[in-house]
Amino acid sequence: MTALKNDTFLRALQRQPTAYTPVWLMRQAGRYLPEYNQTRARAGDFLSLCKNPDLATEVTLQPLARFPLDAAILFSDILTVPDAMGLGLYFSQGEGPKFERPLREEWAIRDLAVPDPETHLRYVMDAVSQIRRALDNQVPLIGFSGSPFTLACYMIEGGSSQDFAQVKAMLYQRPELLHHILDVNARAVTAYLNAQIESGAQAVMIFDTWGGVLSHAAYHEFSLRYIERIVAGLKREHAGAAVPNIVFTKGGGHWLESIAATGCDAVGLDWTVDIGLARERVGAKVALQGNLDPAVLFAAPEVIRTEVARILERFGPGSGHVFNLGHGIAQHTPPDHVSALVEAVHQLSGKYHA
Amino acid sequence: MTALKNDTFLRALQRQPTAYTPVWLMRQAGRYLPEYNQTRARAGDFLSLCKNPDLATEVTLQPLARFPLDAAILFSDILTVPDAMGLGLYFSQGEGPKFERPLREEWAIRDLAVPDPETHLRYVMDAVSQIRRALDNQVPLIGFSGSPFTLACYMIEGGSSQDFAQVKAMLYQRPELLHHILDVNARAVTAYLNAQIESGAQAVMIFDTWGGVLSHAAYHEFSLRYIERIVAGLKREHAGAAVPNIVFTKGGGHWLESIAATGCDAVGLDWTVDIGLARERVGAKVALQGNLDPAVLFAAPEVIRTEVARILERFGPGSGHVFNLGHGIAQHTPPDHVSALVEAVHQLSGKYHA
Repeated sequence: MTALKNDTFLRALQRQPTAYTPVWLMRQAGRYLPEYNQTRARAGDFLSLCKNPDLATEVTLQPLARFPLDAAILFSDILTVPDAMGLGLYFSQGEGPKFERPLREEWAIRDLAVPDPETHLRYVMDAVSQIRRALDNQVPLIGFSGSPFTLACYMIEGGSSQDFAQVKAMLYQRPELLHHILDVNARAVTAYLNAQIESGAQAVMIFDTWGGVLSHAAYHEFSLRYIERIVAGLKREHAGAAVPNIVFTKGGGHWLESIAATGCDAVGLDWTVDIGLARERVGAKVALQGNLDPAVLFAAPEVIRTEVARILERFGPGSGHVFNLGHGIAQHTPPDHVSALVEAVHQLSGKYHA
Repeated sequence: MTALKNDTFLRALQRQPTAYTPVWLMRQAGRYLPEYNQTRARAGDFLSLCKNPDLATEVTLQPLARFPLDAAILFSDILTVPDAMGLGLYFSQGEGPKFERPLREEWAIRDLAVPDPETHLRYVMDAVSQIRRALDNQVPLIGFSGSPFTLACYMIEGGSSQDFAQVKAMLYQRPELLHHILDVNARAVTAYLNAQIESGAQAVMIFDTWGGVLSHAAYHEFSLRYIERIVAGLKREHAGAAVPNIVFTKGGGHWLESIAATGCDAVGLDWTVDIGLARERVGAKVALQGNLDPAVLFAAPEVIRTEVARILERFGPGSGHVFNLGHGIAQHTPPDHVSALVEAVHQLSGKYHA
């Protein structure tokens, strides 16, 4: 393999000097892009798109053809692991992910097993290898998974939830059962992310979408503890290159110190956090990724530029910042506004890296 | 008027010594109580119940007949003020509050006026006076309103929202328009809460349900700034007694210092915050209210007791804690579990007030 042409993202994650602040966007390959919607229509549905390495490669590369982004992210879903456990992932129109066989019985929980990523998740590994070839070392490829607790939320509730009543009922009433699920999930996610790394992922990210619905104590016991185990089990190097990792808990702004203490390389920030204060709290330990409110992308380019400038100024001089949104890009975002965002990050960040 | 028989709640809000930690529950008069559902059925719908002082009095008192709570809270809605501005509040089955005439046009925004609480919100003042008489000084009565930003969310979106796209579009693209709405709302809420105080409310609470969806900078500029104005304009004494106030931003855990700096008497905490850490951060300045995860009430009484003990222990010795949930009580909560909660708070808190 030849060297990466643009390693700014990987360097920033390791807090090494860079010429500017790198930028990529959560869900950058998605429904705001007309070309994505065309490919998805050809695939039939979202899950068929995820499971077809040719089409997953195609949509992963689409945003890079439009915008000078500093990283690509594997096109996939955070719930591939429980699908591989046999729970039957599907997507119903407008309702997000669902499971055909949610965990309702104790025997089903006791039967949960770690899926072999090389067989049950072969399609993901094939997509990773194929995307790496297609990227041709232009920018690094990010692999990812949902966190053990986030996976458990969907596995127990059977889909998204307003109040997570069932997972919380188990947490308070049958904590040992939830710990069992989380233990299996943590081992499964570790194996899954390591397999992605071996297939070519150059950084990995753990999405803890729902850890933020827990109490302070429950977050530490039921979400962060298992993320920490994954981080400890992740490969940190592959093919002679460092493979940094990122942990992102949405709504985790008051737990940044604890997240940074897991041993991860970078902490993702949602848009509610002031990145300057976050850097004061944890910036000597980890890189920070974020954190523009995705809603800013509905405003005019000059407003986007102002808000980008504010975040860059708040982070301040030096390396260790990967610019991103604080949450996935919204469906109706005008693609031109993404151009304005990426341009603003690249143009305005140079002075902080002098 | 004779003196209150139980002023523990008011004393705790002012961080004066008490014999135990007082407790009340957000939405304590609500759908988890069969007697509430009966009264609501007689009223026809939720809004008719709010607007009928006899029935509002009846449901306000229902939880006090079951549980030895230390405060009553006016039965009403957080959106009465924009309803009085003419926006037409209504409730559609299972979808929460909606407005018939949301703010869609600039002229409508410019036309917004502060409603006179004594005429347009007469039904609320009548309910407050009537509840006070019915309470007969057993426990104090809490009045409340939504925060200016939370009201604006519903006024602009026309109802609840997943992403608050319209209010955020205005915030970033037309901030002066949003500031105009917030200015009118702040003046209206101040007049409304002061009228409640004059009618007999013995403490008041501002519910900032949606401030937590904003970025750090936007929260301070568009939500907290207007809450601060209200706090500065609130009556602090009525009929010879102090009238303390409480500010609660759901999802505001990383802004506690700023909230405490508004000059309020107490800060409400959602369940994601560790109350011990919160006390370290702001407890010398304000009382704290909260913060059990409402989901704990689905667990068995012994689990409820353990979780209550944990929060009491985390807050530690001394006054300045009002026990509450971190969010409104859930619809399907077993009333027996509320008994267990109230009993646990009263029994287990004594040792922290020795």
